[in-house]
Amino acid sequence: MEDRVRFILEEGERLWNKMKEIRPLVHHITNFVAMPEQAHATLAIGASPVMALYPEESGDMCSIADALLINIGIPSSEIFSAMRKAVEVANRKNIPILLDPVGYGATPYRNYVVDTLLKEYKVSVIKGNSGEIMALAGSSGTVRGVDAVSSVTLDLKDVVKTLANRFNAIIIATGEEDFISDGKEILSIRGGSSMLRNITGSGCIAGSIISALLGVKEDPLIASITGLIAFKLSAERADQRSKGPGSFRVHLFDELSLVRGEDIMKEGDVKLWT
Amino acid sequence: MEDRVRFILEEGERLWNKMKEIRPLVHHITNFVAMPEQAHATLAIGASPVMALYPEESGDMCSIADALLINIGIPSSEIFSAMRKAVEVANRKNIPILLDPVGYGATPYRNYVVDTLLKEYKVSVIKGNSGEIMALAGSSGTVRGVDAVSSVTLDLKDVVKTLANRFNAIIIATGEEDFISDGKEILSIRGGSSMLRNITGSGCIAGSIISALLGVKEDPLIASITGLIAFKLSAERADQRSKGPGSFRVHLFDELSLVRGEDIMKEGDVKLWT
Amino acid sequence: MEDRVRFILEEGERLWNKMKEIRPLVHHITNFVAMPEQAHATLAIGASPVMALYPEESGDMCSIADALLINIGIPSSEIFSAMRKAVEVANRKNIPILLDPVGYGATPYRNYVVDTLLKEYKVSVIKGNSGEIMALAGSSGTVRGVDAVSSVTLDLKDVVKTLANRFNAIIIATGEEDFISDGKEILSIRGGSSMLRNITGSGCIAGSIISALLGVKEDPLIASITGLIAFKLSAERADQRSKGPGSFRVHLFDELSLVRGEDIMKEGDVKLWT
Repeated sequence: MEDRVRFILEEGERLWNKMKEIRPLVHHITNFVAMPEQAHATLAIGASPVMALYPEESGDMCSIADALLINIGIPSSEIFSAMRKAVEVANRKNIPILLDPVGYGATPYRNYVVDTLLKEYKVSVIKGNSGEIMALAGSSGTVRGVDAVSSVTLDLKDVVKTLANRFNAIIIATGEEDFISDGKEILSIRGGSSMLRNITGSGCIAGSIISALLGVKEDPLIASITGLIAFKLSAERADQRSKGPGSFRVHLFDELSLVRGEDIMKEGDVKLWT
Repeated sequence: MEDRVRFILEEGERLWNKMKEIRPLVHHITNFVAMPEQAHATLAIGASPVMALYPEESGDMCSIADALLINIGIPSSEIFSAMRKAVEVANRKNIPILLDPVGYGATPYRNYVVDTLLKEYKVSVIKGNSGEIMALAGSSGTVRGVDAVSSVTLDLKDVVKTLANRFNAIIIATGEEDFISDGKEILSIRGGSSMLRNITGSGCIAGSIISALLGVKEDPLIASITGLIAFKLSAERADQRSKGPGSFRVHLFDELSLVRGEDIMKEGDVKLWT
Repeated sequence: MEDRVRFILEEGERLWNKMKEIRPLVHHITNFVAMPEQAHATLAIGASPVMALYPEESGDMCSIADALLINIGIPSSEIFSAMRKAVEVANRKNIPILLDPVGYGATPYRNYVVDTLLKEYKVSVIKGNSGEIMALAGSSGTVRGVDAVSSVTLDLKDVVKTLANRFNAIIIATGEEDFISDGKEILSIRGGSSMLRNITGSGCIAGSIISALLGVKEDPLIASITGLIAFKLSAERADQRSKGPGSFRVHLFDELSLVRGEDIMKEGDVKLWT
């Protein structure tokens, strides 16, 4: 194992344990489909979720949170207004933000919401599936509804690095192999389960886990990689005990609750590309 | 087995396989209770769900979908406006629409939403429980909240046929025995599980499955019957392994993912009445 | 066992059986995270849930319900307006109301919603976790997001009694030990499972169960205690068969469906303090 990868995994182990100790409060503004599952996932790993979806209180709620997750899965102008209030508070108070551009490219309104947020505010991490990240980079025809399609022509490794520099943020493109970049390094993580494509909100759940780790307020690259490893190994373990998507979901939440810091070090299948 | 029933089941087998191949995108505008489960069910059978609930993007999202499901389970004027935009696009682009008039008869506003949609637009399939379909036919006192009650005085077979002609659509009245009519034929399907009454959104899930099959854009009567058979046999199989509504839901999603085209032919318990 | 406790448990046994017979319709205006689970829980115990979230129909829906549950978990001015319409109908028609002040103390808007409802209307039961009930009594620093924190300085027994007199309602503060008062008596209930802290909406589910029992329209103190016992013993039984929060949730819904009236009498671990 390369020294740099070993360092990242050691840091990940430490960060996971610290997250469970601190129990960060993650303010979610997210879609109605994944919302219950994201709350369950956040609790399962030992952090604390709160959902304040409307502008009447989103700014106030964000001000007491350790991290903010913005998921644009079911956007409206009211929810967008709540996002802006929360993001503004987060930027002012240095609360880390994870942005999940669900279905970017599928409708003009989704693009408008994401583009506006990225233009006017600073986010720490942007996490999407490969299709969404490709669309964000200007490649069309890569999203259908909210799912990525395979007609990918650009190299994901280049894309995450370019976008990381453009938005001054960690970029994550999830898939069978996840790609991550902070604009300097490019890393990838293998693992997970094909079952993840058969349940709703699996990417959204990964966002919650990373956000909980961002809530510790250390290195966002380590937080991103650690969260992805924890998610992927929980999915792998759940897969082995599942007969279909129903039982997979049950085991996934059980396994998320059982991840220990040392698992990050032992099972993280991380590769450094640059 | 009658020739006509045999033909329907053979077509159903073929349609199920084709649906899994094509992976239709089903745009849902539905209630918050069943939404996550409908997304899971759509994915479980191998189709692709998308939820765009608000007028800011419902028309745009519908334009890329293969089928549109309108479920009025938690209506508001904003969501109604989103429905109208989506339905308008669907009608213009010949995208098939399934309408689920959840709780029709329970409040004046629900009736207004459904009546307006049926007056101004064309839908392919209307699917409700027996109480909702009775209420739609003008029989009062058959809905309590969103559940059917037993005081049914009209003959369901007549009702589905009459409504099919009135709305120029396939009408489905679900229950222990489902009744289906296209205005000419009346068919019924036996099977399922009493457990379906103990979980929320079971009827809504059936709507998602039928909508996925409508997305193949062939005969909507075959799509309706095939979807109901797939749902009922999954419920039957799940029931045998369940101790209560919690485990039933888990097994139901597993079983939905395991249905194969040949099961439709072998296990569909369909009766032709006319 | 004290005579008074024995009487309460006997009444609880009778009430549970009567609830299952009557199948009360519980109108929920609640948050999007717990909504599906509350619907499932209400069905699991044999009652009937309905969710009408928007002002367009919340008053009409309430008028046919047996009980109204108001949960302020994700408040907005639109949903608050729906709450007011429903509560107004409930008060006029003597439909019992349970108020769940989720996250009271976390944001000014949540406080405004709860304070206004309590000032202008009459509720039968207020049920919160210990932090929310403490905040309602004016003790600050006891809520973080929507979860209670431990820095409790007042005596919960005193608080529930004081608030019961102030609001002329049954007050319930949930936790490892639940405290209940009607302003005269103070009772506590032991039991449950530490797993309840690892799933979302467990307190919300308890609210649905109590509301179903309130729907029988007998003694609200008995309804409160009976619902809490049924919830706690289901959680205890589910815990024994669970490996983590995923399987715990599955077993919890199974166990809720299996609770019988006689379990209330046999397993209710109730203590009378005054």
